[in-house]
Amino acid sequence: MEFSAEVIADFLKGEIVGDPSIVVSGVSKIEEGTPGTLAFLSNPQYIKYIYDSKASIVLINADFELKQQPKATLIKVPDAYEAFASLLQLAEAAKPKKQGIEAQSFISDSATVGENGYVGAFAYIGENVKLGNNVRIYPHAFVGDNVTIGDGSTIFAGAKIYESCILGKDVTIHAGAVIGADGFGFAPSSANDYKKIPQIGNVILEDHVEIGANATIDRATMGSTIIRKGVKLDNMNHVGHNVEIGANTVMAAQGGIAGSTKVGENCMFGGQVGIAPHITVADGTKAAAKAGIGSNVKKKDSILMGAPAFDLSEFRRSFVMFKRLPELYSMLRDAQQKIEDMLKTK
Amino acid sequence: MEFSAEVIADFLKGEIVGDPSIVVSGVSKIEEGTPGTLAFLSNPQYIKYIYDSKASIVLINADFELKQQPKATLIKVPDAYEAFASLLQLAEAAKPKKQGIEAQSFISDSATVGENGYVGAFAYIGENVKLGNNVRIYPHAFVGDNVTIGDGSTIFAGAKIYESCILGKDVTIHAGAVIGADGFGFAPSSANDYKKIPQIGNVILEDHVEIGANATIDRATMGSTIIRKGVKLDNMNHVGHNVEIGANTVMAAQGGIAGSTKVGENCMFGGQVGIAPHITVADGTKAAAKAGIGSNVKKKDSILMGAPAFDLSEFRRSFVMFKRLPELYSMLRDAQQKIEDMLKTK
Amino acid sequence: MEFSAEVIADFLKGEIVGDPSIVVSGVSKIEEGTPGTLAFLSNPQYIKYIYDSKASIVLINADFELKQQPKATLIKVPDAYEAFASLLQLAEAAKPKKQGIEAQSFISDSATVGENGYVGAFAYIGENVKLGNNVRIYPHAFVGDNVTIGDGSTIFAGAKIYESCILGKDVTIHAGAVIGADGFGFAPSSANDYKKIPQIGNVILEDHVEIGANATIDRATMGSTIIRKGVKLDNMNHVGHNVEIGANTVMAAQGGIAGSTKVGENCMFGGQVGIAPHITVADGTKAAAKAGIGSNVKKKDSILMGAPAFDLSEFRRSFVMFKRLPELYSMLRDAQQKIEDMLKTK
Repeated sequence: MEFSAEVIADFLKGEIVGDPSIVVSGVSKIEEGTPGTLAFLSNPQYIKYIYDSKASIVLINADFELKQQPKATLIKVPDAYEAFASLLQLAEAAKPKKQGIEAQSFISDSATVGENGYVGAFAYIGENVKLGNNVRIYPHAFVGDNVTIGDGSTIFAGAKIYESCILGKDVTIHAGAVIGADGFGFAPSSANDYKKIPQIGNVILEDHVEIGANATIDRATMGSTIIRKGVKLDNMNHVGHNVEIGANTVMAAQGGIAGSTKVGENCMFGGQVGIAPHITVADGTKAAAKAGIGSNVKKKDSILMGAPAFDLSEFRRSFVMFKRLPELYSMLRDAQQKIEDMLKTK
Repeated sequence: MEFSAEVIADFLKGEIVGDPSIVVSGVSKIEEGTPGTLAFLSNPQYIKYIYDSKASIVLINADFELKQQPKATLIKVPDAYEAFASLLQLAEAAKPKKQGIEAQSFISDSATVGENGYVGAFAYIGENVKLGNNVRIYPHAFVGDNVTIGDGSTIFAGAKIYESCILGKDVTIHAGAVIGADGFGFAPSSANDYKKIPQIGNVILEDHVEIGANATIDRATMGSTIIRKGVKLDNMNHVGHNVEIGANTVMAAQGGIAGSTKVGENCMFGGQVGIAPHITVADGTKAAAKAGIGSNVKKKDSILMGAPAFDLSEFRRSFVMFKRLPELYSMLRDAQQKIEDMLKTK
Repeated sequence: MEFSAEVIADFLKGEIVGDPSIVVSGVSKIEEGTPGTLAFLSNPQYIKYIYDSKASIVLINADFELKQQPKATLIKVPDAYEAFASLLQLAEAAKPKKQGIEAQSFISDSATVGENGYVGAFAYIGENVKLGNNVRIYPHAFVGDNVTIGDGSTIFAGAKIYESCILGKDVTIHAGAVIGADGFGFAPSSANDYKKIPQIGNVILEDHVEIGANATIDRATMGSTIIRKGVKLDNMNHVGHNVEIGANTVMAAQGGIAGSTKVGENCMFGGQVGIAPHITVADGTKAAAKAGIGSNVKKKDSILMGAPAFDLSEFRRSFVMFKRLPELYSMLRDAQQKIEDMLKTK
């Protein structure tokens, strides 16, 4: 399918600089642009590529100042990245979706399946499961007994959802993620071994939650582990039992949140971050990759780094000195020597 | 099902303070207690909730001193958490278990399946596999050729067990865990590439081992990777080839033990801990979250923190100073200046 | 099957010291050697075991100097570990391979399957998939639409390959790994929530790549996430969207490479390493376990440690001082006191 600059600018409510009739049929990165494709320029680091980009159309932030007119036709928009995302979403929405029920699937008699959905071969739908409309369950996905999944949700290949979990609308679970496995609860006994605490709660994922590949969200011991609406967890994140994560918090890959911790809204965590059990993390907290948040974060919009984590700017100042520690030690020894000399000569 | 305080106290050998005839049909957390439910009070932090808890019955440590009589009926026991765990286990044991062989499973002709077990749809049981009695294999689980699984074990949905691994009794493998994939063994060749070392060993999991969701335990190059009885590994733990973990050691989520390392008994590791290859870690070692144990731990019951890890109290003392490093640097510069001044004026 | 020392020495082009007619039918570790088995001695730490090893044959580095003649027959080779690997590979190659198409598999009509391959029960082969010759697809593996897999590749149980990914020859994907899930791309909106950026690229794995159990390699936003030939990634590694990893780089378990980063050739990374997004890491870079590489590594063959990572020897020198920080602080306070005293007495 081809689109002209005019049609695209009209959709994005942008302003054309160049040829409105030029057409594109695909997308490209600005630094690798090819004729017939559309690229975008959002990160100022890439501005040098615009003058020579062979892309036919480039979406560009309206406030960028260019030294000369590029070869490509420009469409000026307030936020080129967001505009580009809109176009991709449009293309994605236009793509044919998997539909229907493949013969080799297993659907319990007591399960209900909404309209226009997909259940792939080898998908397993347990007893009393309720699937909304437009729900897509890919091959090898496991949906345990009494699970509810809201309209428009997608469960990718091999994701596993244990019994009695509740998923909202437009939830996406990527391949291999495990929702609702037992929390890690064992009572130490006097014989130095452990007695398992049955985990009788569940997991609730609210609307628009996205869970990355091979992530694990444990069920609550009692009650629910709750992931509020709009939360995005990247691959291999781990969420312990009875955790609650506030709306629109995002976490990069391989992070872990230990049991019973309450994380606020609109937080952002880098990769491999760890958060201790039984603490509260304020709304808007940000933590750099590999941070270890070991105690309550009370101040909203805190920015943290290190393990144990503390204020990012302070961490950086301390770390500069950490790198100079051998030098500081020499300075200190030198000072000591001079003091000794002075004391001797007195 | 309803139980009276009298029946519960009798089972737990506890002492009733309040109404022995009051009945409960579920459980709740003490801070969210509702009529008709049983809660417990074990952590002193929660003692403030007992006076107003609406739970009908509360299990409480016999040695807790209360300021006034709560509304709830109390059952005094030596350890309320353990008593509560016993009740949950009782309830769990009473729940109907999955049983029988679902039609769409695959069981090799040469496999033997014990009594009262469950094999879910799309489960794969390879050649010469031996399943004990009361073994439950959930949908999408893969049990490779020549695997043995002892009585009472449960393999949850989509767990994968490679050929020739041996699982003891009452072993639990959560969804997505992979037991017996190849160890990471490659011999560098002169051409800068790597020659794979075939991994011809296996994995042995002894009785009462529990392996979390999406964890991976690699098979040995030769011989066996061995997890001793009672070990509990949380989600996404990684255990390298030829590792041995001693009895009743527990490890929180996302830890990793590199190849050929020998970890002792009764150890406790926080989340995201890493342990280097080819080392020995003494019995009873504890390590805080994110510790990196880089060399042999010879002293039993060591408590470690940091990466590389060393004694936890020492780490904390050093870390306090790390946070003050910019200040220490100023102090040092100031001392230098004063020394210079003194030397000049002499 | 039995092999004599003579046959083995002939295959390895090694020199026999001892009985050329002695036969072995299995392998063992030198410290646990048993009659009728072959062991090897490569690591000098294990040299003490050779004199009493009950193994019938031991492969040994030709340049090792022994104090006395061991009981075992020796075969001297330039590199005992590599020689041993060759023998294991020979044994591995001789083992019967899974072959044929098991009845309960799903293969789309439009898919093409090469010769001498294996497709296990419950494996799913999507539309237009192209499988080369000698490709083995284990049970529960998911091969999405339009995926291509080259000759001799193995996809173990339950690995998931999303649509349109391209795998070269002799690629190995271990159980539970996920290739081609969506990259973590969301555009923040003014309403504090996030708009998903559709991920329309794919993943390319070149020849001889090996991906560990439960690892995840995300598809590119546009274009391809590329893993060059010979790369070996251990279990639970995470590779973000649009990453490129150069040939023959190896990474131990639980590492993560964030989006759009370019890692060079012949790099070696320890366990739990993290690499920041949008950076370049030079060829031959090595990083110790738990390193956090936060910025461009420009110098080839850099050796890094710490988080944020810097030169390993410098890190070690700083870390020695970190452990002594409380002592340094005392020294500093002591110096301050002496200065004060001197100033007072002046």
